[in-house]
Amino acid sequence: MWHQLLEQIQTGDIKALARTISFVENEQQGYQELLGQLPGNDHTKIIGVTGPPGAGKSTLVDGLVGELVKKNLKVAVLCVDPSSPFNMGAVLGDRIRMSQWYTNTNVYIRSLASRGSMGGLHPKIIEITELVKAACYDYIVLETVGVGQSEIDIAGLSDVTVVVVVPESGDEIQTMKAGLMEIADVFVVNKSDRPDADTFVKNLRLMLAPTFSSHKNEVPIIKTVASEGHGIKELWDIIEAQESIDTISEKKLWLLTDKVYLLIQQERMKNLDKHIIKTEIASRMSKGENLNLYQIMHRFK
Amino acid sequence: MWHQLLEQIQTGDIKALARTISFVENEQQGYQELLGQLPGNDHTKIIGVTGPPGAGKSTLVDGLVGELVKKNLKVAVLCVDPSSPFNMGAVLGDRIRMSQWYTNTNVYIRSLASRGSMGGLHPKIIEITELVKAACYDYIVLETVGVGQSEIDIAGLSDVTVVVVVPESGDEIQTMKAGLMEIADVFVVNKSDRPDADTFVKNLRLMLAPTFSSHKNEVPIIKTVASEGHGIKELWDIIEAQESIDTISEKKLWLLTDKVYLLIQQERMKNLDKHIIKTEIASRMSKGENLNLYQIMHRFK
Repeated sequence: MWHQLLEQIQTGDIKALARTISFVENEQQGYQELLGQLPGNDHTKIIGVTGPPGAGKSTLVDGLVGELVKKNLKVAVLCVDPSSPFNMGAVLGDRIRMSQWYTNTNVYIRSLASRGSMGGLHPKIIEITELVKAACYDYIVLETVGVGQSEIDIAGLSDVTVVVVVPESGDEIQTMKAGLMEIADVFVVNKSDRPDADTFVKNLRLMLAPTFSSHKNEVPIIKTVASEGHGIKELWDIIEAQESIDTISEKKLWLLTDKVYLLIQQERMKNLDKHIIKTEIASRMSKGENLNLYQIMHRFK
Repeated sequence: MWHQLLEQIQTGDIKALARTISFVENEQQGYQELLGQLPGNDHTKIIGVTGPPGAGKSTLVDGLVGELVKKNLKVAVLCVDPSSPFNMGAVLGDRIRMSQWYTNTNVYIRSLASRGSMGGLHPKIIEITELVKAACYDYIVLETVGVGQSEIDIAGLSDVTVVVVVPESGDEIQTMKAGLMEIADVFVVNKSDRPDADTFVKNLRLMLAPTFSSHKNEVPIIKTVASEGHGIKELWDIIEAQESIDTISEKKLWLLTDKVYLLIQQERMKNLDKHIIKTEIASRMSKGENLNLYQIMHRFK
């Protein structure tokens, strides 16, 4: 079965790609063999798009997809919905909005529910992006709400990370968004037709000043009105320029290294069931035994 | 050497505790043996305090320490400073403010710089809390800025997690703070003498409504003015009440399980140097070889 899937996705069969992603997502028999046989492809670029809910990420991604389609490039959009009760509604709405692309054979769109642990992206996100690469897409756009750990993960997966904010979010930027600030390769101020947009951009620039040291170049800030298509082409030009800056190969090496590291960690931990640890602890507690966590760790290491 | 440290910390020698923490932090020879010999202690309670910068966490912790000192209880405050360029100033200021306790033998205060990866708490935070437990402290207060992953980690470490916010943060709560909302066992609205405090509390209560399902009890919201000592005693009573709710033992079991799981992960990954992975990838790239990440993973698994 997996041999066939592997052949089909390489011919550009979108339905086969969808099936293969589910195949890996559900860890069906043979999924590891399939992953082990994927042709490596370092041509595909991953663009991460994150930011607070309501910033207009989906409309923006929609615009970016339009730019890529115009250039006759193949693009896959992976939307990771963090499983938070706060975001459900918005995310479902987003998906419906993007339905105009469903009939375009150069565009593949997939929603991935982040299962399991709070924060983070999808547990198989690395494997899924590798599948899309094998299907010869030119770009993968990885879209997620910047909540908890997901904003850190997206930077670790993307060649270029775009952080989308809106003029209202001034206060947040001063407090909670240190995480978002640090990962941005490009800032987008969306809905920039609002009256306070210019002040906001000025403040954002000031706010970004302390991080200059960790960036060779100043982090670009682009104003967009995604709902009217304004600024999308400029954003695309900036993203392309980011990809070609001379630090990219070192950055790319570390990106790949971190991905392999996470895959190894997943592999080394996969046989460990938390319930067994819990049972051991409960048993020690009930017997009034020493609860030295380090000793318990050594039983399972 | 470590035998002596182990004996000394159990007698309540604060300087020995400080030395032992550094001993473990720096992985000096014998640190693993020492950790393996710690007497287990499930009497010590860990209280996590987190929230955005400027919410007054330190002043509040200061007040909580005062309450505990009054009751003649021993308390250790561990302040984890995420290594973000945005927080440095505030954190240093906080430390100075707490200096009134440095001469009290029932109070131990330690700042821990979060080294290594972005987000998360200190890489040895579990081991350090176990050391403090062995030194027979009644309470550990774990204080950190709620940025990136640290807010998730603190909930995983604490028996009771206190999230501190201020009335101004209304907008943030609607957007970025899903992570903070989900981890709170108790909400503190500090600086609640501000005019908009009551409206804020009302909105917070509405905002918290969707998470009721995951909590047996409604999440309590306490108003404080930490700088004047208002509400601190009430907060303390609520924290004590949280500790004794009937779900605590199941929660505690999972807390301990997660800690052991992280220790195992650390142990299983400790011999893996990312630079070796990076060298392997670079070598494959330069030879134009297949960059199948899954294959590379299997070389190191």
